[in-house]
Amino acid sequence: MSKQRVLTGITTTGTPHLGNYVGAIRPAIEASKDSDNESFYFLADFHALIKCQDPALVHQSTREIAATWLALGLDTDKSVFYRQSDIPEIPELTWLLTCMTAKGLMNRAHAYKAAVDANREAGEDPDYGVTMGLYSYPVLMAADILMFNANRVPVGKDQIQHVEMARDVAQRFNHHYGEHFELPEAVVDDNVAVLQGLDGRKMSKSYGNTIPLFLPEKKLKKHINKIKTNLLEPGEPKDPDTSTVFQVWQAFATPEQTAEMRQAFLDGIAWGEAKKQLFELVNGQVAEARERYETLLASPATIEEELQKGAEKARAISRPFLEKLREAVGIYKIS
Amino acid sequence: MSKQRVLTGITTTGTPHLGNYVGAIRPAIEASKDSDNESFYFLADFHALIKCQDPALVHQSTREIAATWLALGLDTDKSVFYRQSDIPEIPELTWLLTCMTAKGLMNRAHAYKAAVDANREAGEDPDYGVTMGLYSYPVLMAADILMFNANRVPVGKDQIQHVEMARDVAQRFNHHYGEHFELPEAVVDDNVAVLQGLDGRKMSKSYGNTIPLFLPEKKLKKHINKIKTNLLEPGEPKDPDTSTVFQVWQAFATPEQTAEMRQAFLDGIAWGEAKKQLFELVNGQVAEARERYETLLASPATIEEELQKGAEKARAISRPFLEKLREAVGIYKIS
Repeated sequence: MSKQRVLTGITTTGTPHLGNYVGAIRPAIEASKDSDNESFYFLADFHALIKCQDPALVHQSTREIAATWLALGLDTDKSVFYRQSDIPEIPELTWLLTCMTAKGLMNRAHAYKAAVDANREAGEDPDYGVTMGLYSYPVLMAADILMFNANRVPVGKDQIQHVEMARDVAQRFNHHYGEHFELPEAVVDDNVAVLQGLDGRKMSKSYGNTIPLFLPEKKLKKHINKIKTNLLEPGEPKDPDTSTVFQVWQAFATPEQTAEMRQAFLDGIAWGEAKKQLFELVNGQVAEARERYETLLASPATIEEELQKGAEKARAISRPFLEKLREAVGIYKIS
Repeated sequence: MSKQRVLTGITTTGTPHLGNYVGAIRPAIEASKDSDNESFYFLADFHALIKCQDPALVHQSTREIAATWLALGLDTDKSVFYRQSDIPEIPELTWLLTCMTAKGLMNRAHAYKAAVDANREAGEDPDYGVTMGLYSYPVLMAADILMFNANRVPVGKDQIQHVEMARDVAQRFNHHYGEHFELPEAVVDDNVAVLQGLDGRKMSKSYGNTIPLFLPEKKLKKHINKIKTNLLEPGEPKDPDTSTVFQVWQAFATPEQTAEMRQAFLDGIAWGEAKKQLFELVNGQVAEARERYETLLASPATIEEELQKGAEKARAISRPFLEKLREAVGIYKIS
C-alpha cells in the first residue's frame, strides 16, 4: 500500500491554548511520526482573512502558531510545514475549482446555513453580513486538500461536510478533465479530547475561557487557579467527573496519575491543592517546549526559514501538479 | 493630470469575427495610440473557464485572439498585452477581495439573476446549473481591474454593473485596510458599432451567424455571399437602413464610400454586386493583417514570446503591489 497523505490546516486567528494542544496539536505531532504517512501541516492564513480583518492579529497568530508547532517538536524534515499564502498555486487552483463547483453545493454548507438562520431569526436579509469569503471557503479548503492530493484529512465533526464537498468538486473535475484528483476522506478521531475552559464550557477563544499553552510560569499558575470550582471544603469528597480541574488533569496525566487523582478527589483533596498539582503536571510537560517557544519568538528569522523550507517542499509538488491541471483545462503556453 | 490606466479583457472562448473587430478590437487598438493612456489588454482565460470546459477550444481561442491583436498592429511596447493566467497575483488578489465582498452584492449581478429567472421559469431550483464561477466572477473581474489600479474600463452596457461592483469592493477594502485602490470607472462608448450577423441579428458566436475576421479570401467571399437579403431584383431600389450588407459596409467604409453605396442602393444595385463590393472593401482592409495573422499562427513561439514580454511588464506592477496588499491584510513574512 502506498503512503497515506495526511493534511492538517491551522487557522491563524489566535494564540494556541491548552485545548488546541490536547485536541489537535499533540495528536497531529504524534501522527507525523507514523512512517506510513506523509504529513502536511499548514498555517491557513488565507482562511484567517475570512474571520479576521486585524492584520496585526493575523500576523501575530501566524508567528505564534508556527513557533508553537516547532517548539513542540514537529519534525519538519519528515513532514511538510508551510504557510498557505506562500503557495500561489493554491489560489490558482481555487479558481479552477470555483468553475467546477455547483453553487447549490455551497448553499448547503453548515456555516453558511447557520448564518442565514441567524439572520432570518433576527429579521434581517438572509445574506446580511455574509461575505463571499465565508460563503465560498469550502472551495478554498478543497484546493488546500486537492493541491497535494491528500487522501486523509483529520477533522472535527463540524468539518466532515467540507471534506465531502472537496470530494464532490474533485469528482466533477475528474469527470470533466480526466482523473487528476484522489478523493480525500475525512478522518474523525472520536477519542480526541475536548478540553473544558476556565468556566467549564468547551475551551474556546470565542468564549474567552482559554488557558494559553505557553503562558509564563506565574501566569499559567494564575490561570489554573481561575478554573471554576464548587464551594466544597477540604476534606469533603468531590466528584471528579464534573470537575474541570480533573478533566484537564486527565488530559495530561498517565492512567496511573489519573487513578490517583480520582482517589484524591473522593478523599476530599482541597481545590487549592488539586490546582497546585495540576499546575505542576502541566507546567512540567510544557516547560521545555515553552523555553524553545520563547527562543523561537525571539528569533523570527528561524521561524521564517522553517516556513520557507516547507514552502519549497510544498511547491516542489504544487508547481508541477498545477502545470498539469492548467494543461487539462486548456490554459497553457502556446507552442 | 496623470496618465489614465485603461484596461480591457478579452475572453478566450471563440474566434474573432468582424463584429468583435468593429466593436472592440479596432477601437481598442486605436485608443492604445493615445499617449495620455497606459493601456492594458489581457486574454481572460480564467474567465473563459466559466463558460467553456473544452480545453482545446480555450487554448485555440487564446492563440487566435493573441495572433489577431498582434496582427492588427497592437503596439506591445507602448501597451501591456498579457494572458491573465500568467499573473498568479490575480487569483491571489481574488481571494483577498473575496473576503471583502458582501454576498448580497453578488446576488444582484445581472448574469446571475438572469440564470435564476430562467430556472424559476423552467420550474427548476433557482441555482440549477449555476456554478460558483458564474456566481463569483465579478470578484475575479474586480481583481483584474484593481490589480493594476486601472481607472478606466471600456465596457459594453451589460458590463457597467461589474465595474461598479469592483468599485464597491475596492471601497470596502480601502475602508478596512487603508487607501490602496483607485476607484475604477466604466467607460461606455455609445458610438461603438454593433455589427449585424449573417441572419440580420447582432453578430454573435452564440447565434452562429458570424463572419470570422481572418477567413481565407475564398471563404470570406462565401460568407459575405451568405448574408441574408430580401428578394428585390437588380434595378429595384433597396433600403440601405434595413440591410445588413449596407450596415457592414458602413462599418468599414469612409463617409464618402458610405454615401456612394447609399446612392447605389437607392439606384437599385443588384445584391450580388453589392456583396462583391463589400467583399472587396473588407478584404482590402484585412488582407495585410490576415497575412501577418497566418504567419503568427505558423510561428506560435513568436506569440508566446509576446505574451511573456507582456507578463513580465504586468508582473513588474502586480508583484510589488500584491506584496503591499499582503502586508496590509497581515499575511507577510515573519521578521
